[in-house]
Amino acid sequence: MELDRRRALAAAGLVGAAAALAARPAAAAPVTVPHPGAYPPGRPGRDYIPVVTPNGVTLPFKIKDGVKVFHLVAQEVDHEFAPGLKALCWGYNGRCHGPTIEAVEGDRIRIYVTNKLPTATSIHWHGLILPAGMDGVAGLSHPPIPAGETWVYEFPLVQHGTHMYHSHHDEMTQIALGLAGLFIIHPRKPFRRVDRDFALLFSEWRVRPGARRPDPNEMTDFNVFSVNGKAFPGVEHMVVGQGQRVRIRLANISPMDHHPIHIHGHTVTVTATDGGPLPPSAQWPEVTVLTPVGSTRDLEFVADNPGDWAVHCHMTHHTMNQMGHEIPNMIGVDGSRFEARTRDLTPEYMVMGQHGMAEMAEMNMPPPANSIPMRGMPGPAGYIGMGGMFTVLKVRPGLTSYGDPGWWKHPPRTQAWRASPDELAADGVEV
Amino acid sequence: MELDRRRALAAAGLVGAAAALAARPAAAAPVTVPHPGAYPPGRPGRDYIPVVTPNGVTLPFKIKDGVKVFHLVAQEVDHEFAPGLKALCWGYNGRCHGPTIEAVEGDRIRIYVTNKLPTATSIHWHGLILPAGMDGVAGLSHPPIPAGETWVYEFPLVQHGTHMYHSHHDEMTQIALGLAGLFIIHPRKPFRRVDRDFALLFSEWRVRPGARRPDPNEMTDFNVFSVNGKAFPGVEHMVVGQGQRVRIRLANISPMDHHPIHIHGHTVTVTATDGGPLPPSAQWPEVTVLTPVGSTRDLEFVADNPGDWAVHCHMTHHTMNQMGHEIPNMIGVDGSRFEARTRDLTPEYMVMGQHGMAEMAEMNMPPPANSIPMRGMPGPAGYIGMGGMFTVLKVRPGLTSYGDPGWWKHPPRTQAWRASPDELAADGVEV
Amino acid sequence: MELDRRRALAAAGLVGAAAALAARPAAAAPVTVPHPGAYPPGRPGRDYIPVVTPNGVTLPFKIKDGVKVFHLVAQEVDHEFAPGLKALCWGYNGRCHGPTIEAVEGDRIRIYVTNKLPTATSIHWHGLILPAGMDGVAGLSHPPIPAGETWVYEFPLVQHGTHMYHSHHDEMTQIALGLAGLFIIHPRKPFRRVDRDFALLFSEWRVRPGARRPDPNEMTDFNVFSVNGKAFPGVEHMVVGQGQRVRIRLANISPMDHHPIHIHGHTVTVTATDGGPLPPSAQWPEVTVLTPVGSTRDLEFVADNPGDWAVHCHMTHHTMNQMGHEIPNMIGVDGSRFEARTRDLTPEYMVMGQHGMAEMAEMNMPPPANSIPMRGMPGPAGYIGMGGMFTVLKVRPGLTSYGDPGWWKHPPRTQAWRASPDELAADGVEV
Repeated sequence: MELDRRRALAAAGLVGAAAALAARPAAAAPVTVPHPGAYPPGRPGRDYIPVVTPNGVTLPFKIKDGVKVFHLVAQEVDHEFAPGLKALCWGYNGRCHGPTIEAVEGDRIRIYVTNKLPTATSIHWHGLILPAGMDGVAGLSHPPIPAGETWVYEFPLVQHGTHMYHSHHDEMTQIALGLAGLFIIHPRKPFRRVDRDFALLFSEWRVRPGARRPDPNEMTDFNVFSVNGKAFPGVEHMVVGQGQRVRIRLANISPMDHHPIHIHGHTVTVTATDGGPLPPSAQWPEVTVLTPVGSTRDLEFVADNPGDWAVHCHMTHHTMNQMGHEIPNMIGVDGSRFEARTRDLTPEYMVMGQHGMAEMAEMNMPPPANSIPMRGMPGPAGYIGMGGMFTVLKVRPGLTSYGDPGWWKHPPRTQAWRASPDELAADGVEV
Repeated sequence: MELDRRRALAAAGLVGAAAALAARPAAAAPVTVPHPGAYPPGRPGRDYIPVVTPNGVTLPFKIKDGVKVFHLVAQEVDHEFAPGLKALCWGYNGRCHGPTIEAVEGDRIRIYVTNKLPTATSIHWHGLILPAGMDGVAGLSHPPIPAGETWVYEFPLVQHGTHMYHSHHDEMTQIALGLAGLFIIHPRKPFRRVDRDFALLFSEWRVRPGARRPDPNEMTDFNVFSVNGKAFPGVEHMVVGQGQRVRIRLANISPMDHHPIHIHGHTVTVTATDGGPLPPSAQWPEVTVLTPVGSTRDLEFVADNPGDWAVHCHMTHHTMNQMGHEIPNMIGVDGSRFEARTRDLTPEYMVMGQHGMAEMAEMNMPPPANSIPMRGMPGPAGYIGMGGMFTVLKVRPGLTSYGDPGWWKHPPRTQAWRASPDELAADGVEV
Repeated sequence: MELDRRRALAAAGLVGAAAALAARPAAAAPVTVPHPGAYPPGRPGRDYIPVVTPNGVTLPFKIKDGVKVFHLVAQEVDHEFAPGLKALCWGYNGRCHGPTIEAVEGDRIRIYVTNKLPTATSIHWHGLILPAGMDGVAGLSHPPIPAGETWVYEFPLVQHGTHMYHSHHDEMTQIALGLAGLFIIHPRKPFRRVDRDFALLFSEWRVRPGARRPDPNEMTDFNVFSVNGKAFPGVEHMVVGQGQRVRIRLANISPMDHHPIHIHGHTVTVTATDGGPLPPSAQWPEVTVLTPVGSTRDLEFVADNPGDWAVHCHMTHHTMNQMGHEIPNMIGVDGSRFEARTRDLTPEYMVMGQHGMAEMAEMNMPPPANSIPMRGMPGPAGYIGMGGMFTVLKVRPGLTSYGDPGWWKHPPRTQAWRASPDELAADGVEV
């Protein structure tokens, strides 16, 4: 069968794909891609269960003579990262990041790219095995797409996995401004069915308070951290039924940081990279999945631990929103009057609280113009002091819809409590 | 058996744990956790061999009605990173980082947390499968613990592995100040016995020379790098007998950097993450183990190569102590008089030597107040020019204790030597 | 056989090696190292196929009484990173980075190290299992090698793999200035033959425009990114025949950054680290291989997809050359006159284009003295706007030599094209 497949790919003119697939670990799950065209284009619901892109959408397509036809429009987008923080970004089809492309192994796809940016661009189909002239590296694969023009990419999909698309022309600038999206290729015959399938694209930005545009020159001091283009509390929660098998596809298009994504309440198994599925023998368990720049990681788990669970980057500055890292260390110092005076002079100025950052939310201190509060949102047990690359996984028994089920109601004695004098005495705890 | 276990966990009210464990790779070593409570609380020496936490201690416990009772006190700590460098940090029970918690799979534990900090806090039990209300994310799992109060966390341990505990309230501030520690859960029936079992918790700090407190706002320019809260030469060495099987548990609670920990003289096998043990088929060999932020890695090896071996982060700035990255590049320049004058004006100012940093130690140049020398300590063959995340693994035959065996005595012709004229001539080497 | 080997190693006085190897995953490919000396020294062409080090050379050796004798000379090197950018670096034998050492498992080697630097140095043989006194950690393993002296390292090679050598004396300075090279140990009996075997050593530097030397104190703001000491467009391309099995050995001696190396057009398999070969069961697929600081990764694939394929670090600032991260964000602003005036005052000053960085190349704007253009080189389809850690893999059918085959000629309909009005109409695409 594998041999048939390689012959079929060769017949389809994609001579490299067969061998590239042959380079996969021997123990990998068998791949069953037919000759591109031998099957009708894969249809959502029938051939695959679409992914859920929180805060996002899936790019629609038409079918013309057996080919799936997509249309991406690169353009400036007036984007809101979170309530209170907007910036002029670049994206696709009015969104930043762009819509998720979904297709099926064995599909032939044609993607029209209209460039409505003020400068040239191109699109690289990250991780895809395709003809060299479709690879999107401007100047190497093909000329950059001039402003105002519409170009065509067309190729068969000879693999499945979690991939991305992004500009590969002046990418330092164009990726930093938002020209990226997810590209999911479903297997023709699902080899591992899941009940819920989420796709999260992470990135990082420098948006100076008061500035209208992200700064693409920033190399280290990022201050906005996003999941599918949104910063918490702007990020939608993920709702799953207790006992469901869940996949979360992590993709990192950040300019510079490898993000360690931490999942609370469950151990997960890493099952794939953008190079394809890991053979079961090579899969490894994690609670924090390092997702390097320009990489994807699929993780799976059974969501059998009910409750509200944090999912976030573990780098502590990446779960904060814009904060001005220039703020002086005020631990132990009362700086409240100092700040008010200084901010008259420089709107980015902000001091931390006398005992940390939490006070700033508690005191309801107004943030500078066009910026978001330091972090957070009201939660079921007080203020949730997190921002940026943070969201909540809600695991519930007896779900009838994936709408917001509200906060988790803790069964008795399963939530940390204030110790009573009797308890302290019984256990001999001196406080 | 696995089915029994899942049923038992469900009966214990920890409905999620069974399924989470089921999500582990199929090839993983079988887990044998009984119904929590079915076994008596695990005892050190009998049910497990305690880990060694260099420079640290294990948190004591009492047993009350079959429950292990611990008590953590969050408080300010006057902490010494290395001789000559102190800072006001935050920690637990007078230590920074806090004491190591050790327990056994199947134990039920109750942890009292007394908050003696000037602000609210909470504790997240990193990597543990537990009820959502015990997860420690302030505002989401439960309210933050107010200053002055004592709260209770209680849950069964349904897994084993190398984990951590740390603040999850204003964590950017509170982790940066030191609120973290190791949490080791031993397997009920050890599936892989080792002779020596070390646990190292890595972090990074910004302590400005002259400042009393670490700066929690620092995002990139850290200048103190610690192993169990200590910077070399303050870090204890690890002593093992030749031929012993050794495990080193690496845990990274650094705010921002993924540390590549390099082990000299041996190849090691990565055997576990904080998600649990890797199945043998998925284990991989390393000499440098990347330990991402918010992650743990267990590595194992047979210490059969005697001698003194460096173990350190391979990021070159992480094996230096405070140095002021503002110092100008003086390679090829004689800057000695310049420095003395400048330091009158700014105590953080320091120039590097004309040919590098090594001269600074050699010249015995006094460091600024409240700072440590650039690096190092006297060694068996001159000055060991290292600081920060660096320690020494001493492998010795015929050990009778784990006290300091002194430096290694090299057998003849096993130590690099100065070439003699005869040798150069015999080998035809032109110098 | 494994037992015999351990006995042989013990007999050779390298008591630790046997056990270290025993610590490898059980499923690893069997190792067949004989007693060092039992075989004649391995010869290129007969016992192994030498690696290709683009832009580099292999260090020559002599054989004396069955021992391979090498000679490294540490010295200052007037190094060119790319046309237009030179700096006074430190290296070996007139090269920066140094020449690649190649040898064979079971060889006994003797390496003379002559120190022509103005300060002491040492060499650590990164990842090698050897006697403690040969490990090169100055002050711990042996004294630093004083300026002007020649010292001897001698030991058997009891393993195979992709390793490095680098200074371990004042390494923050000495590695940043270039004292490093590749160390490849071929297996005595190749267990996995490849047709093409490339070795790439990555690093990062801070070379201020106008400065004569790299700045070793830089911790975050690197601005030159190198492959074997060269920055694109100074990096040689890699030429392979279509259908060949290719290995690329990635090694990272960067001071601070873990580089995610992205390979276009193929999926690859990670087959080894500097800890040795991964057992087949543990190998995993990638299109982006994270290579941590102080680590190596071997990847393999069948190059069956013809064309010109980018191979590069995916961190967007690492495929740019010196650019001054201080440049202000000019997206949407016409800054051309501003720049010319400012550069009179400060030669490092540069503004980005109104719509990004690509314009700077297009406008052919002259870079400051002793610096390289922002990025890039002319390509087959316009300007290739990349610099730093970037190169091109050229896969070609019917190769008769590995000389430059020129740019790929795309078969019809395999290169993105401008959409015609008819195509837009037929597919109903509104632009």
